[in-house]
Amino acid sequence: MTETPTVRPARAATITTWDFEADVVVAGYGVAGAAAAIEAARAGADVLVLERTGGWGGAAALSGGFIYLGGGTPLQRALGFDDTPENMEKFLVAALGPGVDKAKIHDYCQGSVEHFNWLVAQGVPFKEAFWGEPGWEPPHDEGLMYSGGENAAPFNEQIPPAPRGHLPQMENKRTGEKGGGYMLMKPLTETAEKLGVRAEYDIRLQRLVTDDADRVVGVVAKRYGKQLNIRARRGVVLATGSFAYQQQMIEGYAPRLIGRPGAAIEEHDGIGIRIAQALGADLAHMDATEVAIFGDPQRMARGILVNGRGQRYIPEDTYPGRIGQATLLQQDNQAFLILDEEALEAADATETSTPFFRQPPTWVAESVEELEAEMGLPAGTLQSTVEIYNRHAKDGVDPVLGKKPEWVKPVGTPLAGYDMRGFTAGFTLGGLRTDLDSRVLHVSGEPIEGLYAAGRCTSGICAGGYASGASLGDGSFYGRRAGVAAATQEASHTPAAGN
Amino acid sequence: MTETPTVRPARAATITTWDFEADVVVAGYGVAGAAAAIEAARAGADVLVLERTGGWGGAAALSGGFIYLGGGTPLQRALGFDDTPENMEKFLVAALGPGVDKAKIHDYCQGSVEHFNWLVAQGVPFKEAFWGEPGWEPPHDEGLMYSGGENAAPFNEQIPPAPRGHLPQMENKRTGEKGGGYMLMKPLTETAEKLGVRAEYDIRLQRLVTDDADRVVGVVAKRYGKQLNIRARRGVVLATGSFAYQQQMIEGYAPRLIGRPGAAIEEHDGIGIRIAQALGADLAHMDATEVAIFGDPQRMARGILVNGRGQRYIPEDTYPGRIGQATLLQQDNQAFLILDEEALEAADATETSTPFFRQPPTWVAESVEELEAEMGLPAGTLQSTVEIYNRHAKDGVDPVLGKKPEWVKPVGTPLAGYDMRGFTAGFTLGGLRTDLDSRVLHVSGEPIEGLYAAGRCTSGICAGGYASGASLGDGSFYGRRAGVAAATQEASHTPAAGN
Repeated sequence: MTETPTVRPARAATITTWDFEADVVVAGYGVAGAAAAIEAARAGADVLVLERTGGWGGAAALSGGFIYLGGGTPLQRALGFDDTPENMEKFLVAALGPGVDKAKIHDYCQGSVEHFNWLVAQGVPFKEAFWGEPGWEPPHDEGLMYSGGENAAPFNEQIPPAPRGHLPQMENKRTGEKGGGYMLMKPLTETAEKLGVRAEYDIRLQRLVTDDADRVVGVVAKRYGKQLNIRARRGVVLATGSFAYQQQMIEGYAPRLIGRPGAAIEEHDGIGIRIAQALGADLAHMDATEVAIFGDPQRMARGILVNGRGQRYIPEDTYPGRIGQATLLQQDNQAFLILDEEALEAADATETSTPFFRQPPTWVAESVEELEAEMGLPAGTLQSTVEIYNRHAKDGVDPVLGKKPEWVKPVGTPLAGYDMRGFTAGFTLGGLRTDLDSRVLHVSGEPIEGLYAAGRCTSGICAGGYASGASLGDGSFYGRRAGVAAATQEASHTPAAGN
Repeated sequence: MTETPTVRPARAATITTWDFEADVVVAGYGVAGAAAAIEAARAGADVLVLERTGGWGGAAALSGGFIYLGGGTPLQRALGFDDTPENMEKFLVAALGPGVDKAKIHDYCQGSVEHFNWLVAQGVPFKEAFWGEPGWEPPHDEGLMYSGGENAAPFNEQIPPAPRGHLPQMENKRTGEKGGGYMLMKPLTETAEKLGVRAEYDIRLQRLVTDDADRVVGVVAKRYGKQLNIRARRGVVLATGSFAYQQQMIEGYAPRLIGRPGAAIEEHDGIGIRIAQALGADLAHMDATEVAIFGDPQRMARGILVNGRGQRYIPEDTYPGRIGQATLLQQDNQAFLILDEEALEAADATETSTPFFRQPPTWVAESVEELEAEMGLPAGTLQSTVEIYNRHAKDGVDPVLGKKPEWVKPVGTPLAGYDMRGFTAGFTLGGLRTDLDSRVLHVSGEPIEGLYAAGRCTSGICAGGYASGASLGDGSFYGRRAGVAAATQEASHTPAAGN
């Protein structure tokens, strides 16, 4: 690249030719963009999607496909799970905070059953099967799973748990060919196409175009180095993804992710955030991050996880994303798994979707004392951790962290230690502040006219915490809102160029 | 208040009367504003300071007065401490990160000795006396103290430690009448006055004024409900402090501080940040926070601090601001101090600047087992923590956390537990992204013409960590830079109103 293009808005009066025109221009063809395009088209708008890569899908199509939904969806009910919007809301406020957008979470929970039905109506398949084991994903094509630690401490004691990770039915799971994310995106983009949505590919967003009243009326983009001016008569929807791959933003906002972006795609360079900031758009929760940990949840649930001082710090049977966050953000990325031979065998006898997380042991020993010494932990630290765990495990309880009885068993010998330091990676959750109609808010609190956003370029329902499915969930939910809001906006009076 | 005023910029062309005019307009008369005013005046500018309250001082005048300086200041040398800019830089990068602005820290360390001399030249008094005890501040008028954990684990093993907390000589310390912050601000504002700097009080900043080329040429403010238009011929310097008291910004950016603002003043409402954001200004480290803990450092150093699981988590003899951050951000604000009778007596026999931090015990017991039960900790947790600590303390070492031998002594009986849950409070460290000349950077990376900023409305040398004196330090250092840069800017050609 020879020069960094400016992100400052262009004035419509300076545009001499519009290369494309549409009522609603959607930037990004991931889940938020597809949902926006569908609903904008249904509302009668002529819709054009601009996608940076050579095809639809975004990070969504490459993801596992979890969509966080609840409150009593037909899938939950068919599988025998009671849930209410109120319990879902209580859980999300507790698990995704502190500092969550409570109005957004309330709105999201109230609309969740309707949103599930909408996804089904667009052709997204959900198989009526539940997977109840600890893990990142089901090993097969099951449609429902716990995905945020609802059934683990401390939440299971506070709020009636229900599984809310809804998964589009996968095909050829083992080869990764048609994973949950693909099976979500394919029907959505097919629906959009049927509705007449146009899509242009290999187009990189550069800046927004504003009229003299500061209303957004288009975008400037580039394709293979050639500048394109694209007019949006009613509105622009930003659905450009996170900033996990924008180095300066990571350093400035979410430095714990330096060198460890994950579950994002390299196109996630924060461009949608930056071009809106140039108009005075407000931000929220720029430090918030999803954090994955590359450990086998089956093994973790059956062992004990300790930090760099040999202390336990998290119930090992919870959502692995909570383990990832706690490890990176609260334990300086220091984690060691302690597992005895019997537990290892039991774990490895179970099915898992991610067998490559089963790393070989770093240390093996005949006693805890020996393992502690081999690991280089100060004398007594690991021994006392195991002693206390075992003292209570004999009674099948874990009063220290509340691991569920079914996973609590004294640690025996021989045993092994697994070095999981630096095993975390993640993506960013912060971004543009939007209202319930997905309007991008100016720092004054007023909406920026003509500008809408959804997905991971916005701050959605998450603040400090995460649950798998929250991103595809709020991305599709508020993508729909953005599409409707943009399509029903009065057309701007920007004259066609050259007229 | 009847309506929220907009933070959107006003266009100069719409201003019909200028109520005040100056070459350089400085918003805020705390340490950054005073330093900016002095240097702008010295550079030949006609300077006007706008202060929201009825007098100069800001949060600085109410603070302890620490200024983080080093690299071999005359005060360090007179007191026998070796220091180099390189060691200072290594420490700050290690202690204030991750994600620090390395160029800014390098610049700050290289200029630190000169900055100390400058402060002395403005009349700021420093007494040649060192205070070497753990604590928040010296009990008397000593001029030098460790203020960031330089002489504690893990830094003392990595980087040659030097005390860098420079304190203006206090008068009447015990009454709080003329504390270190007052003794810093008084000579600075007197110097400014001698240089002809004008100041107007009770003026609330509302928005910036820009010309047709988007250069900042003034501000709109209010005094007692009356709007004032203030022209800045060369530049505007924002020195308006943190956003610790702006509820929406705290919820959206630094939610762990919800309900616990501290060491800030209520005027810290983020206004300088928001009016610059409205121009497309970039931000950094909005989640970063200083965190104080209201515990007596003498007692903490002599005891052991445990979290909600009865585990130690921080060397108790380090800078208490590190203890505060670790407690709030990594231990869910759960902290308990365990202290035996002998240690309590030794601690309370020492001098301290903050005797009111010496709270009564929450629980007392004849044995650790009894204390553990009274505290409601799971059986064995506190006992094993004390056991391991004592096992190594007998040899005078703390291999778990590296507390210095002078503070390591086995915990005996009788003993007490102090409930320090919720004992934290703090202020925000994030804000506008600025360059080394204190120019406010647009999200495009280019400076916003005519706009400068320093102090806690900017992201300074801190990211995740903190050291006492970093805020008055970078505030005064980059305040000076802002003053020079604004004063030497070519005057704008905005015509006087009505001409």
